[in-house]
Amino acid sequence: MSIRIGIYGYGNLGRGVELAIRQNPDLTAVGVFTRRAPESVKTLTGIPVYSIDDALKMQGQIDVMILCGGSATDLPKQTPFLAQYFNVVDSFDTHAKILQHDENVQKAAKKAGTTALISAGWDPGMFSLARLYAGAVLSEGKEYTFWGKGVSQGHSDAIRRIDGVADARQYTIPVAEAIEAVRGGATPELTTAQKHERECFVVAKEGADAARIEREIKTMPDYFADYNTTVHFISQEEMNEKHAGLPHGGVVIRSGVTGVDGAHRHVVEYSLRLDSNAEFTASVLVACARAVYRLHKEGVVGCKTIFDVPPAYLSAKTREELLGGLL
Amino acid sequence: MSIRIGIYGYGNLGRGVELAIRQNPDLTAVGVFTRRAPESVKTLTGIPVYSIDDALKMQGQIDVMILCGGSATDLPKQTPFLAQYFNVVDSFDTHAKILQHDENVQKAAKKAGTTALISAGWDPGMFSLARLYAGAVLSEGKEYTFWGKGVSQGHSDAIRRIDGVADARQYTIPVAEAIEAVRGGATPELTTAQKHERECFVVAKEGADAARIEREIKTMPDYFADYNTTVHFISQEEMNEKHAGLPHGGVVIRSGVTGVDGAHRHVVEYSLRLDSNAEFTASVLVACARAVYRLHKEGVVGCKTIFDVPPAYLSAKTREELLGGLL
Repeated sequence: MSIRIGIYGYGNLGRGVELAIRQNPDLTAVGVFTRRAPESVKTLTGIPVYSIDDALKMQGQIDVMILCGGSATDLPKQTPFLAQYFNVVDSFDTHAKILQHDENVQKAAKKAGTTALISAGWDPGMFSLARLYAGAVLSEGKEYTFWGKGVSQGHSDAIRRIDGVADARQYTIPVAEAIEAVRGGATPELTTAQKHERECFVVAKEGADAARIEREIKTMPDYFADYNTTVHFISQEEMNEKHAGLPHGGVVIRSGVTGVDGAHRHVVEYSLRLDSNAEFTASVLVACARAVYRLHKEGVVGCKTIFDVPPAYLSAKTREELLGGLL
Repeated sequence: MSIRIGIYGYGNLGRGVELAIRQNPDLTAVGVFTRRAPESVKTLTGIPVYSIDDALKMQGQIDVMILCGGSATDLPKQTPFLAQYFNVVDSFDTHAKILQHDENVQKAAKKAGTTALISAGWDPGMFSLARLYAGAVLSEGKEYTFWGKGVSQGHSDAIRRIDGVADARQYTIPVAEAIEAVRGGATPELTTAQKHERECFVVAKEGADAARIEREIKTMPDYFADYNTTVHFISQEEMNEKHAGLPHGGVVIRSGVTGVDGAHRHVVEYSLRLDSNAEFTASVLVACARAVYRLHKEGVVGCKTIFDVPPAYLSAKTREELLGGLL
């Protein structure tokens, strides 16, 4: 029997989930839940659209609800709320607030007897797994996460708020020398700013003072001031043509030692190069929905993360296929 | 309370386990069990040495027994046998026989109510995890495992058996062009021989016919005949000086697509560069012993693999540390 998935929210991530479900024959998309008027929304694959107000009426028809809202305001409310009625998966990615989010969802899920999995995606998510495994194996070592090359939507938005800016796209780029040093086994102390550069593509409004815009970007606290930042002014046409995608990725490296007096060094590296940030995240959410369904069937309830899930639960393959072909 | 570990077998892997336990304050090495006369064996860290004949007497003193024998003849017998008396972890690495090994250990462990984890290490082990996770997330894709650069002991042994060879070391080297193609998103069909080259360093006995040795190596079926193989003759001094270590490593790459008509490509890459094959494997075994102890305490019995273990069980960190710092 197919696992029935509801998609709660229908932006980039929701559309990615819809498409990812189609790539997994053991899953079925029941429909999309939206705050907009359902008749105004057309789905990519023709699945039904419902108002979020009707979600609770469909409890019996959905095995797992995948939440596709944002971490700033949507998920902190939606995940604990929906965990009262559904098994849920979300991609809550505000690292500093995960413990608080876990506590809220834990309470709701335990009370209702549902199963929740929070903070799935690639970071938090696949990168977190890379950090955990490498750290568990190489207990004496140091680990680094580099992000990019990829588009940071938060930084792009920050530039767009500057007076005279019509459009902007910011790429986070790992500093090549820093990656090479760590890859080679060095274990320097590096701040986020020492690990990354920021490259900005800006469309200025007609008559705007480019020099002032560049200065405002480069001196913006937190976002840019501490970083090696470059600014390129381009036309709207060039922006549309060359910077329409939302690629991202990065690399997690742990370097550690074993043996007598730490004589032997080992370097573990996990990297992602993603054409579409949202669609890859969606693919992780969908695999996690499979795991949540299985955990729930076994009677596991409460709030979980990818750290709590036996890897086999994410895969559609049987134990025999896994041990015979993948292990 | 510290988790009490027994080390069954005291070669390179056993010594690696002994040293790895010292890097993990929540684990204690109870002692080494050897087939040799215990008084003839001196451990690196001064832990006691027992005869394997005395192992069963120590059931109450050991939480997990880590088996450090070889996959060809030791583990197929030892793991099912010891699983009758102890929780066990092994590094059984004959991929084609894992299902059979699992069946044997499963039977013994379920009957005895013990917990076993088989086939831990880096391949099978960490590489298997990389393959499983990437495949679960990118269900539409293709995956590649490249081994090396590293010493293959099996291939080195095969050369040493040739008449006139005094010593030999064989390095398995991934074909750089093949890795680059896959990394770039190409999905060619590649045999193991198309993915790897073999570089051999050989010390010939005095008066031996080097040309014949080289020919015998390059035409050896299964081991070398299908591969691009190079042979270098060197002195024993050079062998001892430059080829004493047993480094290994490799890379798992999965390339897959998502989106409308598979429009977006994603490349997941996991790589290891290991100064010491045995010590890294030992570090994985030790983390798995921690997980086995925890699973057993929860009442989970039977034969498991790393695919069945929630990642958090491998780590010494608390849930709060994991969610607050690593996720």
